[in-house]
Amino acid sequence: MPRRTGRPRTAGASPTGRGTREDILHAGARLFCTVGYGSTSTHALAEVAGVRQATLYHHFPGKHAVLLELLLGTVQPSLDAARALLAGDEPAPARLWALCAGDVRLLRAGEDNLGALYLLPELDDERFAPFHDRRAELEAAYRALVAACGVPADDVVRTAALVLGLVESVILQRRRAPGTLDDRTADVVADAALALVGLEPAHRAAHAGTGRRLAAPAPAAAD
Amino acid sequence: MPRRTGRPRTAGASPTGRGTREDILHAGARLFCTVGYGSTSTHALAEVAGVRQATLYHHFPGKHAVLLELLLGTVQPSLDAARALLAGDEPAPARLWALCAGDVRLLRAGEDNLGALYLLPELDDERFAPFHDRRAELEAAYRALVAACGVPADDVVRTAALVLGLVESVILQRRRAPGTLDDRTADVVADAALALVGLEPAHRAAHAGTGRRLAAPAPAAAD
Repeated sequence: MPRRTGRPRTAGASPTGRGTREDILHAGARLFCTVGYGSTSTHALAEVAGVRQATLYHHFPGKHAVLLELLLGTVQPSLDAARALLAGDEPAPARLWALCAGDVRLLRAGEDNLGALYLLPELDDERFAPFHDRRAELEAAYRALVAACGVPADDVVRTAALVLGLVESVILQRRRAPGTLDDRTADVVADAALALVGLEPAHRAAHAGTGRRLAAPAPAAAD
Repeated sequence: MPRRTGRPRTAGASPTGRGTREDILHAGARLFCTVGYGSTSTHALAEVAGVRQATLYHHFPGKHAVLLELLLGTVQPSLDAARALLAGDEPAPARLWALCAGDVRLLRAGEDNLGALYLLPELDDERFAPFHDRRAELEAAYRALVAACGVPADDVVRTAALVLGLVESVILQRRRAPGTLDDRTADVVADAALALVGLEPAHRAAHAGTGRRLAAPAPAAAD
């Protein structure tokens, strides 16, 4: 059994077999989500990752870079899905359904609730600009699909913010009451999104059916 | 013009006229929401409040106690409204509308986005139990009203979590895109909550009208 923590090594010999860089990211995710970002030192980060601090600094200039890479890892799969859906020619409500369901699944997945880090005030630092840029592109995708569903132009920004808010409320639910999340959550949220854009129940079912085929398959959920 | 920071005083002479305790709470809200909770020292807290550290410790045993009092201050008005609405005899959808709209207004109000602190992992500490107890009571109120709206028993927990998630998504919106929040937001979210519990559009309007009369008046919004 390899030791997981407190065993400094110079480089390469990842005790988990995931590689040093992945070990550091994994340690960052765990510590930022349990101890807190501000309360996590690079010393603690190196210790939990099982590497020397010098090794940590060889891979990342500081803990902000670990956080940035974790954040980019949460938004990129979502953005890839959004780009594919925007380019599709299926009915807009079906594509919006698929975007919402896929994002809920991503927010539920993974061992740690990384979405909770979106609210950190530390993210205002310009070093996190690459994350904010990708988030802005994701928000624009939500607005484009909400508009394509026939929401009046004056209401698009507000309605898209509401839909994305409903999707991201999974972050809050996962923090507060993880037991209320299950395999049906993604469908329920995506159905509710179609209600928010004003679709009648009778029309929602068919779009949900198409959306289900378009949505990315569920990643491994955390439980 | 009284000095706001960096001017230690022994006690009592609050430069803002709000009183020392309020000055400390105000400094805590500002620092926790801009610098971060983990990154805020009691030294910084005392300095921004314009008091000596000894004075801070006279009022609060530590920064956790400042955070706890801030959190209790966010949940108590909401809980007071929930208790009054639960005891009312108006139709359940109107009372649910009023609860949602009132909570959205509270989450929008105030100079700092204190709701963002709900996600801090530091809150798992048992010293924050009084906050979690009140939050649990608020969640129970949402479940009771969702059930009273006729949602099937098996779906009450899930639907109530979705409704509360929609309300609290205002916290995320305020962090991400404060410009999308305005005086209409509370109404839009409360209307959407009635859609989530399955009310047809034709029935929602009347309940929204009653709910608007029941809802607490809007506190001063932050802009």
